[in-house]
Amino acid sequence: MSFTYKYPRPAVTVDCVVFGFDGAALKLLLVRRKNPPFAGAWALPGGFVHQDESLEAAALRELSEETGLHKVFLEQLYSFGDPHRDPRGRVITVAYYALIKLSQMKLAPSTDAEEAGWFEAGALPELAFDHDVIISIALERLRGKVVYQPLGFELLAHEFTLTQLQKLYEVILGRELDKRNFRKKMLQMGILVDTGKYVTGAQHRAPQLFRFDERRYRELKKQGFVFEL
Amino acid sequence: MSFTYKYPRPAVTVDCVVFGFDGAALKLLLVRRKNPPFAGAWALPGGFVHQDESLEAAALRELSEETGLHKVFLEQLYSFGDPHRDPRGRVITVAYYALIKLSQMKLAPSTDAEEAGWFEAGALPELAFDHDVIISIALERLRGKVVYQPLGFELLAHEFTLTQLQKLYEVILGRELDKRNFRKKMLQMGILVDTGKYVTGAQHRAPQLFRFDERRYRELKKQGFVFEL
Repeated sequence: MSFTYKYPRPAVTVDCVVFGFDGAALKLLLVRRKNPPFAGAWALPGGFVHQDESLEAAALRELSEETGLHKVFLEQLYSFGDPHRDPRGRVITVAYYALIKLSQMKLAPSTDAEEAGWFEAGALPELAFDHDVIISIALERLRGKVVYQPLGFELLAHEFTLTQLQKLYEVILGRELDKRNFRKKMLQMGILVDTGKYVTGAQHRAPQLFRFDERRYRELKKQGFVFEL
Repeated sequence: MSFTYKYPRPAVTVDCVVFGFDGAALKLLLVRRKNPPFAGAWALPGGFVHQDESLEAAALRELSEETGLHKVFLEQLYSFGDPHRDPRGRVITVAYYALIKLSQMKLAPSTDAEEAGWFEAGALPELAFDHDVIISIALERLRGKVVYQPLGFELLAHEFTLTQLQKLYEVILGRELDKRNFRKKMLQMGILVDTGKYVTGAQHRAPQLFRFDERRYRELKKQGFVFEL
């Protein structure tokens, strides 16, 4: 599987930016590195691409090995190739990202990662390599998406309150939104179904529970729109 | 610049999908390969990434070497890493794309390319590697952009007719648009400036020449919208 080629070859890795939402904060999945460089530092789950696997297969394998997370829907984000991004030498990384429901997630790190954990996107520890840059590009992508597509299906529990949905938009956009305006626009989009249920255990005026109308949600996602917030 | 790493390393290339528009058809820049594999076949301009250059620098260098084209604004498209996409062995390619004005372009191939030329996007010759797949992803990206952003500034001459602008949208979207409706929507967007000039040499009812209001165009591009066609 090798051929003559006059240039020294770079190493190629994949890295995964996995977002989750706990109803109040946008979370990011990180692993603690076992080995140098940056041993002991937190980093995105990822690792070297094997010779006979596609980039996406490599990302899924690394995510599973390092965090125990399986069957995640990954989208390719961007490739990072600054010649000095890795102190070991030339390493090009292809980054992927995913949105998942936190409730689906049982962390079970192994192999190269010592520990895996969720961190608030706005309060991350110091990260290995250029992973802070990769994460900021992923957040930008997420912000770009919010404007043109409905968002939340992949991140929220099956039933959720409008407050949780608003909070999700607020953490992604990084600013507060007007509650009345947000609700009005969300309801106008026609993607929410009133479940007729209320949050149990609430003291006073229990909040209503909604779910997404999956068909309408997918239609709108395909068709696109501008959600002016 | 090399470190121990137990996996065989892939080769990494960059490829450039460069679109141009001649007033009637969407064109793609291709080069004819000098060397095997696929010697003599048409392919996207591109080549191996050097050890000390960024991915974007590599794409710009290859584009310049193979086509004579300089200072092109490249955006990263996607990375392609199917293990069998290159008969020589494992080669991962990072694809970039650009929109340029055909009038700016003087082709001057050298190095690895025997010949460079513009081909109609809808009538391409048989291509080397998986370059047909890369091009279809680039076209999809372009189609996606048309819906949310004004388009044409990078592709049209400084002054253009509404018919040329409509033709551009039609070739990208791959379908005919209603003339009256298209003109009405374009004029409503406020990005067109009537130059007061007309196409010279026209037989009858010379078409008006427009240009883009650059400030408004950039504003709208940044802010996003949905152009329902």
